[in-house]
Amino acid sequence: MNEEKPARSSAALAALAFGALALAAAPAWAQSGNHLEIIHHPNYDKSVFMPFSPAIKVKSGKILWLAGGTALPVYHDHPHKREQILKYLTNDLEGQVRQTMDGIMETLKAAGASPKDVVHVFIFRARPRMGDIGKASAVVNSYFAPHNHKPTTTNLAVLELGEPEQLVEIQVVAVVD
Amino acid sequence: MNEEKPARSSAALAALAFGALALAAAPAWAQSGNHLEIIHHPNYDKSVFMPFSPAIKVKSGKILWLAGGTALPVYHDHPHKREQILKYLTNDLEGQVRQTMDGIMETLKAAGASPKDVVHVFIFRARPRMGDIGKASAVVNSYFAPHNHKPTTTNLAVLELGEPEQLVEIQVVAVVD
Amino acid sequence: MNEEKPARSSAALAALAFGALALAAAPAWAQSGNHLEIIHHPNYDKSVFMPFSPAIKVKSGKILWLAGGTALPVYHDHPHKREQILKYLTNDLEGQVRQTMDGIMETLKAAGASPKDVVHVFIFRARPRMGDIGKASAVVNSYFAPHNHKPTTTNLAVLELGEPEQLVEIQVVAVVD
Repeated sequence: MNEEKPARSSAALAALAFGALALAAAPAWAQSGNHLEIIHHPNYDKSVFMPFSPAIKVKSGKILWLAGGTALPVYHDHPHKREQILKYLTNDLEGQVRQTMDGIMETLKAAGASPKDVVHVFIFRARPRMGDIGKASAVVNSYFAPHNHKPTTTNLAVLELGEPEQLVEIQVVAVVD
Repeated sequence: MNEEKPARSSAALAALAFGALALAAAPAWAQSGNHLEIIHHPNYDKSVFMPFSPAIKVKSGKILWLAGGTALPVYHDHPHKREQILKYLTNDLEGQVRQTMDGIMETLKAAGASPKDVVHVFIFRARPRMGDIGKASAVVNSYFAPHNHKPTTTNLAVLELGEPEQLVEIQVVAVVD
Repeated sequence: MNEEKPARSSAALAALAFGALALAAAPAWAQSGNHLEIIHHPNYDKSVFMPFSPAIKVKSGKILWLAGGTALPVYHDHPHKREQILKYLTNDLEGQVRQTMDGIMETLKAAGASPKDVVHVFIFRARPRMGDIGKASAVVNSYFAPHNHKPTTTNLAVLELGEPEQLVEIQVVAVVD
């Protein structure tokens, strides 16, 4: 019993020490949407319309890395099934971007992240036509605008995606508690 | 000596407190392969064959960022030497993917990371032919299957890589202790 | 008072425990340029000229994610203005890379990061000609050489960037305090 007593009191002290630390490290457990700091240049021209942020600093939280998403359902057979390709990969860029972003939103939700937690969006387009970059960008941004959030983005056209019918692949990096 | 005694006992308690903390924060010092949490949608259809994970959360560890790897040896002269191009960049996608992944495995090992610690794999292909995405994917996945691990991936064809003969470039993000 | 005494002494002990920990975790508050560990293979051939590092481990600090940068000023109107395209996106790869890197340096500075804090550089080129990869690479590296730093890189040509005149887009991941 004499041995037990010091053990108990040091356990109490350890708990106390841990409490002090939890306090010091509090930002690490901040709520969704507070992990990111938007970086702007000093004295930047606010009259310029910027659809994305120049940089984002991950202040806290844990990195959440998503697979490149497509207009197919997030869970789809491999190799791809011809009937799924015809059903989901229609020749409509904005439609494909919307379906892709819907899948990404589901995955973010499954991880406990909100659109406000998105750090970077890679938009890879195929079969590009003039104006496509703006069209894809507008649909992507519409998912973040209600959260008053502008992720950093990279938006480019590649030679080919997973299927000839696939017009877009979107790859997101976010952060979660 | 009176001064020394409390010092010693508080040191002992501090050590104890630290021990408790190490326990509480254990994932941060967890062994290779325990840093990642695979994210799945609730009630997802497990009958669908998915060669990649929808998302991965980096629970602990430190980010390890690899250079884009090629079928050339990881350490190769710049500018590239013609005889090395002819020797290593043969017209065989699966061969080039294998050599590239071998180099990536060496780099992971040099950093103390295992294939189980890989978060994301960007597969950039050139000179694409129908079916290439599946072929490249199968070889890449064969490096992770023995570890029962499926990283998140993005797999696409670009216009050109570092050399006309280069068929693939693979860029990996992992995590280590 | 009897209750107060152990409380006070345990607070002191907690502070001591915290001090021990702060010491243990010191790298997390290291100054700019000390966050990264360059990973090399054991016994690698140092006679080979490598313009990039095989891998970089983020030992400490916070991830800083930049938007894909272009030769346009970092803050530029959207949709892009024709006169800005003609002024900044001239048919000169090295000039465009220089302007792009200048913008990236400004953004790094705004976030409190130095070139030494850069982890990865994605170089996406368009309208590629033989030798472009080396030309782009040389200009990018000239920004890091004075800091004796070689980030990890991925350097490839895509089908099309934001504008037909745009020859390069550079996307950087860094780390800051």
